[in-house]
Amino acid sequence: MDFPKKVTIVEVGPRDGLQNEKEFVATDTKVELVNRLVEAGAPKIEAASFVSPKWVPQMADATEVMQGIERNPKVVYAALTPNIRGLEGALANGVNEVVIFGAASEAFSQKNINCSIAESIERFRDVARLAKEAGVLLRASISTSFGCPYQGEVSVESVLDITKRMQDLGSDEIDIADTIGVATAAHVYEVMSKVTEIVPKERVAGHFHDTYGQALANILASMQAGISIFHSSVAGLGGCPYAKGATGNVATEDVLYMLHGMGIETGMDLDKTVQIGQWISDIIGRQNASSVGRAMIAKCATN
Amino acid sequence: MDFPKKVTIVEVGPRDGLQNEKEFVATDTKVELVNRLVEAGAPKIEAASFVSPKWVPQMADATEVMQGIERNPKVVYAALTPNIRGLEGALANGVNEVVIFGAASEAFSQKNINCSIAESIERFRDVARLAKEAGVLLRASISTSFGCPYQGEVSVESVLDITKRMQDLGSDEIDIADTIGVATAAHVYEVMSKVTEIVPKERVAGHFHDTYGQALANILASMQAGISIFHSSVAGLGGCPYAKGATGNVATEDVLYMLHGMGIETGMDLDKTVQIGQWISDIIGRQNASSVGRAMIAKCATN
Repeated sequence: MDFPKKVTIVEVGPRDGLQNEKEFVATDTKVELVNRLVEAGAPKIEAASFVSPKWVPQMADATEVMQGIERNPKVVYAALTPNIRGLEGALANGVNEVVIFGAASEAFSQKNINCSIAESIERFRDVARLAKEAGVLLRASISTSFGCPYQGEVSVESVLDITKRMQDLGSDEIDIADTIGVATAAHVYEVMSKVTEIVPKERVAGHFHDTYGQALANILASMQAGISIFHSSVAGLGGCPYAKGATGNVATEDVLYMLHGMGIETGMDLDKTVQIGQWISDIIGRQNASSVGRAMIAKCATN
Repeated sequence: MDFPKKVTIVEVGPRDGLQNEKEFVATDTKVELVNRLVEAGAPKIEAASFVSPKWVPQMADATEVMQGIERNPKVVYAALTPNIRGLEGALANGVNEVVIFGAASEAFSQKNINCSIAESIERFRDVARLAKEAGVLLRASISTSFGCPYQGEVSVESVLDITKRMQDLGSDEIDIADTIGVATAAHVYEVMSKVTEIVPKERVAGHFHDTYGQALANILASMQAGISIFHSSVAGLGGCPYAKGATGNVATEDVLYMLHGMGIETGMDLDKTVQIGQWISDIIGRQNASSVGRAMIAKCATN
């Protein structure tokens, strides 16, 4: 079993994790969440989304969040930018990495962003060009790469097709996302192995949801395919809109526990991350969705 | 990535899963649980424990459970037999496989069964001999093989030492158990690779707890080391006495989802298992601890 010596965690809790929360999370809380994650060693944080508040009311305070946080020059602060207006907002607020997003599933593209995959690429062409001109990092996120809530199966060819198009737009990093958490290890290994034939492996990230409990196994399979960048969300923030009550993003704590146990460096502090996870879970009134978080806190209470 | 084509699931919910429940689970419920799991295709079930009711009150009805279930001649019904009296009870009730158990951790052995590892082997010598004479299968379970709640780390040498002793007693199968769920993938791969140097791999099983969310990743690593027998518990029944509120045995549903997704045969029906998991969770008044169970039931409710 070959694994990387070092893995980069992209902490997506403040954006992907919180964006589906119905109750508005106070801007101060979002700012504190980002600051505390940086303090725990997170090297890259998806901090905000410069999207219309009509689409995602929870992200309406993107500007205030970006202005409120204490900037650490070593940390990459990322934000979603669905269009030119979003890009302008992100650039005006000093975002280091902007994220464009498309789906590997045609049905998901139509339902989620109201256009075909091909049209979505055209829409992002100017965003990508202006981002490169501005000198910020450009990331492309490929959702529903392993399955779709509308069309079911998604072929490897569809993933490779949009990956190539995103690469042609100049993406510095491409994340292959299991939006609904249905992937299993052999499928992940196959997709990641083929993606890394067209994109250098150090530019490919895995974004796994734990809806079916498969995320860590899928990260293990991805590492065996050479991937060393993974998205995760503190406390497993973020549910699954396609299965109410189910788990969302893989918890950062669970990923750190596995990686550190395997001797893989992340630069993050597990104990601090567990504390942050319990803190934010309490604030938003959700059960802590991290197994490690629950076990470590229960162990302290039991001892 | 090489994986077995077929995996044998040992369903431990009726014994390991239920034994720490404080409220006594009705004998009829235990019987129905075993029968339904057989109906869902479970090839091997840990159905009871012939142990003093003073130690484990929940298992006091072992005889009634074994007498009550409908026997399927293709299924192996296993029971724990800590001593000669337990063995006699198991044999009188037609148990197919008896289980002896020791720890890889000296501290755990002392705390859990009040004797050293070496003494525990001596205690089991007659049980093992009589079991072989009676022509039933003999399994040895090696607890705390990856970590101990009392002494912390457990060396690979300790695991190999007790494994050899258990093999010398004539064990047909040996399960390497992560009693407190602390193992991570590289450690598991190392231990399993070394165990299979002394015991044929088709006689080695992995018993993983999901306390830190690592169980599926650890099963994946075990399979890469050649293991193809895994213990699991429907609905993830069974908590962790060393971390109250934390998760226990890996859920059968989660294991089946991963294996079937990888094209690995188990002979079990996932949908039926999910139904059984929700049924028993409702009866004992616990949240269903299977991610797959929760997601599949939530999906049905959302659609």
